[in-house]
Amino acid sequence: MLTKSKVKQIRLLSLKKYRQKSGLFIVEGEKTVSEFYNEKWSCDVIYTTEDIVDLKYTSISKLSMSKITQLSSPSPVLGIFKIRKMKRDDFTGFSLAIDSIKDPGNLGNIIRLCDWFGVEHLYCSRGSVDFFNPKTIQSSMGSLARVNCHSCDLDIFLKQYPGAIYGATLDGENFNNVEMISPGILVLGNESRGISSKIINLLSKKITIPSSSKNNHIESLNVSSAAGILLSRLAK
Amino acid sequence: MLTKSKVKQIRLLSLKKYRQKSGLFIVEGEKTVSEFYNEKWSCDVIYTTEDIVDLKYTSISKLSMSKITQLSSPSPVLGIFKIRKMKRDDFTGFSLAIDSIKDPGNLGNIIRLCDWFGVEHLYCSRGSVDFFNPKTIQSSMGSLARVNCHSCDLDIFLKQYPGAIYGATLDGENFNNVEMISPGILVLGNESRGISSKIINLLSKKITIPSSSKNNHIESLNVSSAAGILLSRLAK
Repeated sequence: MLTKSKVKQIRLLSLKKYRQKSGLFIVEGEKTVSEFYNEKWSCDVIYTTEDIVDLKYTSISKLSMSKITQLSSPSPVLGIFKIRKMKRDDFTGFSLAIDSIKDPGNLGNIIRLCDWFGVEHLYCSRGSVDFFNPKTIQSSMGSLARVNCHSCDLDIFLKQYPGAIYGATLDGENFNNVEMISPGILVLGNESRGISSKIINLLSKKITIPSSSKNNHIESLNVSSAAGILLSRLAK
Repeated sequence: MLTKSKVKQIRLLSLKKYRQKSGLFIVEGEKTVSEFYNEKWSCDVIYTTEDIVDLKYTSISKLSMSKITQLSSPSPVLGIFKIRKMKRDDFTGFSLAIDSIKDPGNLGNIIRLCDWFGVEHLYCSRGSVDFFNPKTIQSSMGSLARVNCHSCDLDIFLKQYPGAIYGATLDGENFNNVEMISPGILVLGNESRGISSKIINLLSKKITIPSSSKNNHIESLNVSSAAGILLSRLAK
């Protein structure tokens, strides 16, 4: 049984302000909760409406779960974890940076792509959607537990970055012809505006995913589509 | 001024059943409406709260627009178009097929990828999300106006398909090493279940996007990420 005040506290975790204040965030779904647990994220509590194995939990009713879930179809498992400091980048591999991403689903999908393609560090400019946004966690499918996600002043960070800086633009070299070398970082822009002017100037090389369309009506790809295509090339 | 009954009729177009009955669907946003218009989709009516150029329209109030929009932040332009028969495939190029896709955002994004990479025909199994779902149209960003989207019994269609049939699975050959040749078709599966068994048997070749992750925790990519990566390889 959850008290009214506890329910209220948990519901407030849907807001970035309260996540930052409390240092806590919500993970839903047994599989995703297990992934954070296995990656040694510090767990505040796990609520469940069912018996689950391998995890310490607190049983609650389905009614209580319906009050704290952020999903339209609640999962039987909801964990509250502590936000932790991300591992520092030693700048030996290849990283990804995004200049002002707004859509939590896109961000989650990009975190999942980083996980798939072995990109350990993701940098997002301040003002981007929060890594711990419930929809980001949902679409990252547990990958947020493994990818080091940093929020930073992207221009300041890139000025000090020791490797090559590749940027996805519409006027760059065909990405198939570019050898992307480590240490390196790939920068993607906000979908409606692309990479901002103060970051464009910091790029070592502009790269482009060419369109094979017969007409010129389509202007750009979704940012997570572009991320997938470019990271797969990198992995090759 | 829209009558109550007209508002009701328009709102019902959010449902597939009513779209099929009326043969109409909604497009929102000036740019997307223009794209359907320019691609000669037959237009029933365009409502707008502003003066717009190049299109015949009916002015309505912002209050009326708020009653018929399907967006949380309504655009000033909403068009109602007639569903049309898609162009027949002459089976000379490369096509895409999806076995039971459920998420309208993913489908829209895949239609956008087809447009970008010059894939003219997309086939979805019956039971997939509707091409004219408002969220599909929204995320396809006007590309639905240009890509020929077919709903079909995918197994029957593939049995008669005259070219090579490639399928994205987790146990196939590295896609970087596979020459995908035209005429050909790439089949992607439903995200949670993959390609169904009755279609797996019809594949000429299984292909896989290998993971470069050091751990094996991540199980799959989002279906639209996989589509982007594989279509970009094809375009190359």
